[in-house]
Amino acid sequence: MKQYLKIDPWCIIDSGFDPENVESSESIFSLGNGKMGQRANFEERYSGKSMQGSYFAGIFYPDKTRVGWWKNGYPKYFGKMINSVNWTGIDVNVDGESLDLAKCKVSNFRRVLDMKEATLSRSFTAELTSGKQVSVEAFRFISASDTRIAALRYKITPLNFSGPITVTPYLDGDVVNKDSNYGEQFWEEVGTERVVVAGGEDIGVSFLHVRIKKTPIHEESGIDAHEVCSAMSVRIDGTPSTPQVGRRRSYIGETYGIDAIEGRPVVVEKIVANVTSLDVEPSQLTGAAQSAVAQASTLGFDRLFEDHKAVWAAKWEMSDVVIDGDDAAQQAIRFNIFHLNQTYTGEDARLNIGPKGFTGEKYGGGTYWDTEAFCFPFYLCTSDPEVARNLLIYRHRQLGKAIENGAKLGFKDGAALYPMVTINGEECHNEWEITFEEIHRNGAIAYAIYNYVRHTGDTEYLTEYGLDVLIALSRFWAQRSTYSQDKKKWVILGVTGPNEYENNVSNNWYTNYIAAWTLRYTAEALTSGSGPLTPNPGGTGPTRVSEAEISKWREIAKGMYLATIPGTEVKLQNDGFLDKEMLTVDDIPANERPINQHWSWDRILRSIFIKQSDVIQGMYVFMDDFPVDVVRANFEYYEPKTVHESSLSASIHSVVASHIGDVDKAYELYLRTARLDLDDYNNEVHEGLHITSMAGTWLAIVEGFARKRVTPDGTLRIAPYLPRQHWKRYAFKIKYRGCVIETDVSERGCLIRNHSDTAIELYIDGVLRQIGPREEYLS
Amino acid sequence: MKQYLKIDPWCIIDSGFDPENVESSESIFSLGNGKMGQRANFEERYSGKSMQGSYFAGIFYPDKTRVGWWKNGYPKYFGKMINSVNWTGIDVNVDGESLDLAKCKVSNFRRVLDMKEATLSRSFTAELTSGKQVSVEAFRFISASDTRIAALRYKITPLNFSGPITVTPYLDGDVVNKDSNYGEQFWEEVGTERVVVAGGEDIGVSFLHVRIKKTPIHEESGIDAHEVCSAMSVRIDGTPSTPQVGRRRSYIGETYGIDAIEGRPVVVEKIVANVTSLDVEPSQLTGAAQSAVAQASTLGFDRLFEDHKAVWAAKWEMSDVVIDGDDAAQQAIRFNIFHLNQTYTGEDARLNIGPKGFTGEKYGGGTYWDTEAFCFPFYLCTSDPEVARNLLIYRHRQLGKAIENGAKLGFKDGAALYPMVTINGEECHNEWEITFEEIHRNGAIAYAIYNYVRHTGDTEYLTEYGLDVLIALSRFWAQRSTYSQDKKKWVILGVTGPNEYENNVSNNWYTNYIAAWTLRYTAEALTSGSGPLTPNPGGTGPTRVSEAEISKWREIAKGMYLATIPGTEVKLQNDGFLDKEMLTVDDIPANERPINQHWSWDRILRSIFIKQSDVIQGMYVFMDDFPVDVVRANFEYYEPKTVHESSLSASIHSVVASHIGDVDKAYELYLRTARLDLDDYNNEVHEGLHITSMAGTWLAIVEGFARKRVTPDGTLRIAPYLPRQHWKRYAFKIKYRGCVIETDVSERGCLIRNHSDTAIELYIDGVLRQIGPREEYLS
Repeated sequence: MKQYLKIDPWCIIDSGFDPENVESSESIFSLGNGKMGQRANFEERYSGKSMQGSYFAGIFYPDKTRVGWWKNGYPKYFGKMINSVNWTGIDVNVDGESLDLAKCKVSNFRRVLDMKEATLSRSFTAELTSGKQVSVEAFRFISASDTRIAALRYKITPLNFSGPITVTPYLDGDVVNKDSNYGEQFWEEVGTERVVVAGGEDIGVSFLHVRIKKTPIHEESGIDAHEVCSAMSVRIDGTPSTPQVGRRRSYIGETYGIDAIEGRPVVVEKIVANVTSLDVEPSQLTGAAQSAVAQASTLGFDRLFEDHKAVWAAKWEMSDVVIDGDDAAQQAIRFNIFHLNQTYTGEDARLNIGPKGFTGEKYGGGTYWDTEAFCFPFYLCTSDPEVARNLLIYRHRQLGKAIENGAKLGFKDGAALYPMVTINGEECHNEWEITFEEIHRNGAIAYAIYNYVRHTGDTEYLTEYGLDVLIALSRFWAQRSTYSQDKKKWVILGVTGPNEYENNVSNNWYTNYIAAWTLRYTAEALTSGSGPLTPNPGGTGPTRVSEAEISKWREIAKGMYLATIPGTEVKLQNDGFLDKEMLTVDDIPANERPINQHWSWDRILRSIFIKQSDVIQGMYVFMDDFPVDVVRANFEYYEPKTVHESSLSASIHSVVASHIGDVDKAYELYLRTARLDLDDYNNEVHEGLHITSMAGTWLAIVEGFARKRVTPDGTLRIAPYLPRQHWKRYAFKIKYRGCVIETDVSERGCLIRNHSDTAIELYIDGVLRQIGPREEYLS
Repeated sequence: MKQYLKIDPWCIIDSGFDPENVESSESIFSLGNGKMGQRANFEERYSGKSMQGSYFAGIFYPDKTRVGWWKNGYPKYFGKMINSVNWTGIDVNVDGESLDLAKCKVSNFRRVLDMKEATLSRSFTAELTSGKQVSVEAFRFISASDTRIAALRYKITPLNFSGPITVTPYLDGDVVNKDSNYGEQFWEEVGTERVVVAGGEDIGVSFLHVRIKKTPIHEESGIDAHEVCSAMSVRIDGTPSTPQVGRRRSYIGETYGIDAIEGRPVVVEKIVANVTSLDVEPSQLTGAAQSAVAQASTLGFDRLFEDHKAVWAAKWEMSDVVIDGDDAAQQAIRFNIFHLNQTYTGEDARLNIGPKGFTGEKYGGGTYWDTEAFCFPFYLCTSDPEVARNLLIYRHRQLGKAIENGAKLGFKDGAALYPMVTINGEECHNEWEITFEEIHRNGAIAYAIYNYVRHTGDTEYLTEYGLDVLIALSRFWAQRSTYSQDKKKWVILGVTGPNEYENNVSNNWYTNYIAAWTLRYTAEALTSGSGPLTPNPGGTGPTRVSEAEISKWREIAKGMYLATIPGTEVKLQNDGFLDKEMLTVDDIPANERPINQHWSWDRILRSIFIKQSDVIQGMYVFMDDFPVDVVRANFEYYEPKTVHESSLSASIHSVVASHIGDVDKAYELYLRTARLDLDDYNNEVHEGLHITSMAGTWLAIVEGFARKRVTPDGTLRIAPYLPRQHWKRYAFKIKYRGCVIETDVSERGCLIRNHSDTAIELYIDGVLRQIGPREEYLS
């Protein structure tokens, strides 16, 4: 835990230079626009501890799978999003001495992430060893309006001298990953040059074109070695001189010599375009990057910034959550929303959400079930339906690969098992108990389809795309279930549930439940009036389904083994659970927590302690299936056994606590994730932010405190309460079936505003109400 | 499956040169003497496919543990026995052309492993590209009488020319492991030189001294970087000239130019001494190697060979199994016994038995539970008690490390968990479901102590050493067992049994049974009249045991959960077993076997199929605890579900089949392992031999067909039958409490010969008989 950032409703502020915080701040102050992202590395060289991070969505290196003992079915490679061209760099040299905050006296250091405008500014005064002092103001944004573009303004003022300063804005592809062995490099140069692009005004552009090093895996798997071209255009006020161009392997820099005058700032503007082979043919990359940067440069820094701000204003207009009376909470929820909006914008169905977004290497930028289970509702409620839809289309595009993956594990006839982790549809994970057994991910993908259709009313999606996926998923569940002669029930053996502190267990309640649900939902969708028996013939999967197959699915769903602890209403987490030593989290000595840092794996597995509760996760997803007393009984049984050592756990438990009216518990659990990164609870924020758990915080407010739900028949329900010991008011909007509905909860009650031109009908505190266009209702 | 070797009762014969068989034969024709071992690599250079293998017992490289996701408790390194100095090499050059069987016409190729004398000979005719023909006869042995010494005789005869031939016997430490990445080397040179050692006759000796490359692991773990010094003395009949000495990094060779005459053989004798830092201080190594080789050279090749033969004659005298009427079986059992005797001699309690002995790199030369569970009875019955005792002492020496290992996994108060794989006592394995959970190995170690004491009557061992180990093991079991409120029984959760096709299961019958047995046996040993309550205070472990602790052990043992399948006498393999799809091995399509090469791991785990049966293993170990009908019921239940994809499985099942009188099944199962390597059943013999499964074959005969056992009160029992459809007769000796007893089974009955000077009492076919000194009894 580390609290060095100032509280402010719209900004994150670091107002002192501490080398120990540099890497954490690099994560926290990251910028991104869904296509690219950048840790808040300093522009000028920094020789202190730092983790360079410049990432491009969908651009990955296929690294060779290395395991102790190979198991059939493991993927040959795992793709990982890697550190790429450093396009932010500006070397500064003052009379022969390099400006490097690790080597000079730093004062007045201040760094501000303006979340409203999505900009990063930094200012400081540095005294070099020569005694010369400069002040610096740096400012940058990554354009939300033209996702290829980023812009930096870097202002240096000599404070106590006049004399030569050189500045060298550069593009550097000679980079490594933090996790590289022996400085192994993943990139090679394709070309670098400075050219003059003709236009209204001739614009000097330096570009660097790099390609991921070809490995035998590229050959074997038929995937392309991705390429990136970065181009920059530099403008220095009052210094129109032609730069000296410096090139070396995978590097180009433009050096400008300036006779600086005491007290007069030198202003460097660097506009960058980054274009990748995901969007442009490799042969066209340099041309595309050059013309993009020339175009941006012609528009100019200020206009680029205005366009960028306009996009963010619209994002905030819809997705902001306002909290009055608790600035720390206000800052935190905005921080979370801000990063969610930076990470994924829904414009490109080939992209998804990595657990760390663009803020670090960890988890390799891959897509996990986190997307469907935690992030999906945020985008579904705060964006146009296309955004959430593209998250579904992402999986639909990868259906073929998921079927191949299923076949690799012995499943037939188009049964799909989606990867545990993926970038391009290939499995990128290699631990049998997870890769092969944490199959509940297939359930979350099915449920997201249902959730989308129910929320948006877009039933066309179901017939055009959804059924392809649902059928393949149901085929998987049908084959993965076996009939137990002993139990006279269908069972699912050998799985790992969301609670990864149990491995290879049988009849995991959550997995069995969501499997049965998927089978039932697919069967219903195929046979209901609106759904045809044979879905879209243009779909990806083998989509012919017989009546016999459907009735088999129904039989399995109906006969699925779902156990309750005898004499209680508590669902049995999995077979064998009752054999464990019955302890609660309070029984763990404080110095042994978190247990995953202190206990050996086998000890964790045989203990009762739960990383995140399967049953509570299931109660959260299928809340309408259970009376509130049953949910309460389960929560009261499992919550005391849950150590919440997944960053996804506490927020879901918080939602459920709100549901059962345990307001104190709900708030306590909400707090655990709300400022997880800002206050660095687990001393790991330097590795990157917990993007997917940020969505959980939003859930804890919207689905928790405000108890927003949609009934099975598609009616919105809101039943908010105010955590009044802590907050005076909170308010948020959601998009629902074309309407924008604001929920504003304060001491005086809950005000629901209909921002739309049509009337809406919704349950408020359990009572069905109509609210006319542009009207509001106070309950 | 590959059958290219001739059947012969005492020899293994390969009578044709097929490059495809070279690597297999390198394994099969390996030589060793317990301290060193050598694959049957050709003396002359060979550019074809080959796996070089020269190994020294106890000499290992500590390689860094690499896993996908680190788990607390994993060892930092794993030691592995690595390919070391090539001391067999002799380069031959005929008039400028290198002799290389991959590059010339080969005829009359013949290779013979003489198991009786433990020698390898090879002869062939080669026509070089020049048209010149030579015949070669090579002969080698690794001395069983002086374990530092090996000797080669290499005879080359020009067949159709006279002219210059050069021969270069050499020592080469510039070697890699087959499993090295990028040709990474594990050895570095300490020094190499040719010196003349003064003696009755001056002897020229070339030596090469190498050391394992230091890694950070050596530093961290405080282990030494092992060293080896090899020294050679060369004699060439009629060519007394001083050689030209060639040296390069980690290499020394002596080149002799010979004017060869058509039809007249050139005979090269190379005597080698290999000395390691396990036995000699590094600073003394070169001196020790030089004087050892000088001494051996003075004795001369023939005398060395005589001494060697004498040792082997004694080994065979005691350990041979004679089979009449089936030469393939005769050859196979001798092959197995031969390799067991080559791998372990029991002279050094720091050494043990790797699953591949000295015949390949696989499994890293580490000690597994195989030693106690499969190999131990062979040495116990065929050697002096010191040999088996040293196998026990090996574990006793490592008790401290086993307690450390236990502590790493959270066990307290001197509870020991022995490593799954080890060389020096440190865990060398890193898969959680095995490393942390295949804890039944602790049971096998306890049982071997009991087995030794019962067989030898050496109760002193128990008080001096055995109790230290038993107490530490019992402490482990007591802490590893937890009380299930649900079952009202003690349970052991989260284990992997001998059947590795189930992972992380609870209440594995075998594990629970052997745990309870260990607790009971330790308690009895501590409280019986002969055993003191506090054992040897000079012992390694924390050996004070209170009455309360002992009664706790008894309580757990008594209350241990051991389930039977309702309505049957069949023991339940583990919790959840009955949920599986009830199939038998016949249900697996032939093209999907072995399933471990065709099915993904999760599919194997959730299937009913058993790698080797836990319950049958338990019935084998604790046969006296169960009526034969119960054993039969269990065998008939589990055997049809067992795929025997462990090389240890079939032989134990065979013993149990013999016990229940299923003679056909016993023989069928015996056949599966008897010629496993000779006929290369699994197309993997090129990687090395299955040394520990060889002991299983011996068990299938001695404990199976002859049904040799020892009653709990220490009385020998023999109840043999003859597999008469296949064999005319079989006979073997065992050592038992100072006596040598021969069992000779043929059509006329079972003849028991007492080769001792004292009378013995034993059960023959269930009846207690006395046989006087040097007498025999026919039943």
